[in-house]
Amino acid sequence: MSFTDATPAAIDQAVQHAWQAFLVYRKTTWPQRAQLLYRIAEVLEPHEAALVGLAMEETHLPESRLRNEFARTLFQLRQYAHAVETGIWTTFRINTASAESAPQPDVRKTYVPLGPVAVFGASNFPFAFSTAGGDTASALAAGCTVIVKAHPAHSRLSTEVADCIHQAIQQCQLPDGVFQHIYGASPAVSEMLVKHPLIKAVGFTGSYTAGKALFDIARQRKEPIPVFAEMGSVNPVFLLPEKLAQDATGIADKLAASITLSAGQFCTKPGLIFGIAGDALQQFTTRLAEKLSHTQGQFMLHEGIASAYREKIHSATRRQCTEPVVALSSLSQTLEAKPVLSTTSASQFMAHPALQEEVFGPYALVVVCEHMEQMLQVVGQLEGQLTCTLMATEQDLLQHRHLIDALTLIAGRIIFNGVPTGVRVCTAMHHGGPFPATTDSRFTSVGADAIQRFVRPICFQHFPDRFLPPELQNANPWQWWRTVDDRLSQSRIE
Amino acid sequence: MSFTDATPAAIDQAVQHAWQAFLVYRKTTWPQRAQLLYRIAEVLEPHEAALVGLAMEETHLPESRLRNEFARTLFQLRQYAHAVETGIWTTFRINTASAESAPQPDVRKTYVPLGPVAVFGASNFPFAFSTAGGDTASALAAGCTVIVKAHPAHSRLSTEVADCIHQAIQQCQLPDGVFQHIYGASPAVSEMLVKHPLIKAVGFTGSYTAGKALFDIARQRKEPIPVFAEMGSVNPVFLLPEKLAQDATGIADKLAASITLSAGQFCTKPGLIFGIAGDALQQFTTRLAEKLSHTQGQFMLHEGIASAYREKIHSATRRQCTEPVVALSSLSQTLEAKPVLSTTSASQFMAHPALQEEVFGPYALVVVCEHMEQMLQVVGQLEGQLTCTLMATEQDLLQHRHLIDALTLIAGRIIFNGVPTGVRVCTAMHHGGPFPATTDSRFTSVGADAIQRFVRPICFQHFPDRFLPPELQNANPWQWWRTVDDRLSQSRIE
Repeated sequence: MSFTDATPAAIDQAVQHAWQAFLVYRKTTWPQRAQLLYRIAEVLEPHEAALVGLAMEETHLPESRLRNEFARTLFQLRQYAHAVETGIWTTFRINTASAESAPQPDVRKTYVPLGPVAVFGASNFPFAFSTAGGDTASALAAGCTVIVKAHPAHSRLSTEVADCIHQAIQQCQLPDGVFQHIYGASPAVSEMLVKHPLIKAVGFTGSYTAGKALFDIARQRKEPIPVFAEMGSVNPVFLLPEKLAQDATGIADKLAASITLSAGQFCTKPGLIFGIAGDALQQFTTRLAEKLSHTQGQFMLHEGIASAYREKIHSATRRQCTEPVVALSSLSQTLEAKPVLSTTSASQFMAHPALQEEVFGPYALVVVCEHMEQMLQVVGQLEGQLTCTLMATEQDLLQHRHLIDALTLIAGRIIFNGVPTGVRVCTAMHHGGPFPATTDSRFTSVGADAIQRFVRPICFQHFPDRFLPPELQNANPWQWWRTVDDRLSQSRIE
Repeated sequence: MSFTDATPAAIDQAVQHAWQAFLVYRKTTWPQRAQLLYRIAEVLEPHEAALVGLAMEETHLPESRLRNEFARTLFQLRQYAHAVETGIWTTFRINTASAESAPQPDVRKTYVPLGPVAVFGASNFPFAFSTAGGDTASALAAGCTVIVKAHPAHSRLSTEVADCIHQAIQQCQLPDGVFQHIYGASPAVSEMLVKHPLIKAVGFTGSYTAGKALFDIARQRKEPIPVFAEMGSVNPVFLLPEKLAQDATGIADKLAASITLSAGQFCTKPGLIFGIAGDALQQFTTRLAEKLSHTQGQFMLHEGIASAYREKIHSATRRQCTEPVVALSSLSQTLEAKPVLSTTSASQFMAHPALQEEVFGPYALVVVCEHMEQMLQVVGQLEGQLTCTLMATEQDLLQHRHLIDALTLIAGRIIFNGVPTGVRVCTAMHHGGPFPATTDSRFTSVGADAIQRFVRPICFQHFPDRFLPPELQNANPWQWWRTVDDRLSQSRIE
């Protein structure tokens, strides 16, 4: 198979095709969109073995991890399908006519899809954040059509998955332009796609550099469009004194596993660990170092990522401001990565903003604070994060409420005595966070609320009932929850 | 009184002050924020006569209109207060721990305020979209602190209203930096404000030029921030054949009143009217012209707006592509405006995109289509709009469903047999629309959902109950609606 970059003419053709399909697909009902997502999951499911095998070849991720990710991808498709069937992802709103002080018209609000969406898959999630991943699922659920640019690190897998989606679309008798798949190793392809006037939103998971570039292109368009770029995070962990004294070893073991999971190639990998100087922190660091140095080398996703990891480690080591605890050992293969652990003081950390940069791979930095006041001071200098984690007893939390408060300024998700890797797919999840973690802190890329990214509200005033979308009709044929005159109700309006 | 532009030092000081106040105010509960809004309304209410008097002097709007707008402003403050008290403006989400296939942590999601918000008031709504208007009310309801830049066209009124807000803040024993008021006739003040790193969102109502400029500044920041700019619209009206044949006169009368209301200075003023060539349209146009030419001259808001109106009319008249029906009569005073009506053909309209530009003032253009197909074709060329209006019988709608469909691509609100002016303040309202009507089609600036603009989600994972915000605690002390494991419920969790 050859994966040639799409030409400008092919990109334009794909987008025009997506627009024509959008004019049809946007008129489907929410349950019809759910049917498409269920069908995609059904078509994919029997191909698990072959697809996982292909993913292993292309990404070097272990089979068990890929099987889990495959299951998660099907779960996600079905969960978003269920969400649009039940309406749980939003609240439709109705205010009936009123004549209190002045006559007021009947007003009803639902949501319409934005238009064709460009989706850029992630190298580190070949299933769940790629071709049939969260962005595609939520855009299709919203009623948008989708053009996926295959990630060049897993083009074959992406092609096979795209074929399954095409089959599902055909089985649902929808226009084939509802989903399209193009190749583009060159950034020029992404740029042309995002600049096209008929593309109306962008979903992206990847590096800050690539995500921010797409964001900048999108805002310079004549018609600016939303870009939902999830660009990673260093996911600080805070070791509070009582907890650390009680369980330095247990915490070190948990974090070692989280740091090295899938060779540290998660946007939620804990990259910074803050503790207070003392015996307990020393014990923690020793144990963490021991665990990390005994971790076997793992293959990274591709050579670019592996060499970037080595380069970042080297430049971190060259910095006088950190001390290696577990140094980079010599590697036998270019794709191999081994865990690295360094340590620094809070004052050095604050003096060197570069230490806040994400190192994609099994690397972590322990930052030694003199006291809790200094830890709080450091938090004040942290950038926006997908997650922050508190290792703490309840007594710790009581004594250091200021720390929780400070974290709510910078984090999308705050975890108590857990690890940030492992993002539960559910409506209460928020996978997002203040810039630079994402380009739009108000939206999540995991959980059915992700659908909200690809719709806008529309309001019908004084409309005859039968011309309203079903979700706004008096009969409420699907018993959806709606606010009717500001009261939640599943009932029909008499 | 003198209203000197804020200096760079004063702007920085105000924003720093807003940030310090934010660190306190963000910790208030939703009901405490409601109390502040109720109090602002209470403090304002007894000053109605004086404030309306001042507004009449500064804006030249008629007393009855200003009294209505004042009442609407109080209603809005109270409605948003009620919304955050009851939680109707959003849905909190809880997924409890589960051990189905794999163990899943307890995850709970609420919303936190974005930070200090810069609000730019509108000249045409000295109360409802200015100092104590919708942007201020929704930002305060969200837990943000606010800096209002007074509109130079009503600085005195703005100062008096700001004083009332300050009093309310003091009575609620909140930091005075929760609300601040600065002056700035120069765009440099706005630019500095929006560029300040501690400003986290912007609310704006006004012209496309000014709104787009703020949007561009905000996106070029190191940390881009959301800008909610409501930039106006031409609000197309579609006269469908059966309805027009039945009621040409009635429709003309309704539209004449809507076009001339407050001298046409509404962002929802119907500026374009589409009909099918024929006797009925001729009758409609004649009647509309008659009504408009008998409308008395009205004072516009300020000289800049009045001269812009005359300039736009002159350049519209100079264009060979429109024909005057009611021409601009000579005016006795520089502030005075009189209604103008022109007509053109659909083919001319499509050939001259400039005819789509908003003319702020009592001006409308009748576009004569040859047939319904041509009307549909024209819709395909229209830009994003706050509203579109259908004058139609149900039979018309049945026969021309394609037209409704086409309007859902471009409109924020679609009105059936009504006029676009008059925006009901309720949760089902959507006052927004695709670019260039606004810079963010996903949010409304009217109704309690406007609060959603100024928050972002935050998720607490595996948190001890007592450290959760009240809306996420098991006890659900305020009986708010939440999704608990994807079912809406007001109950406590046992």
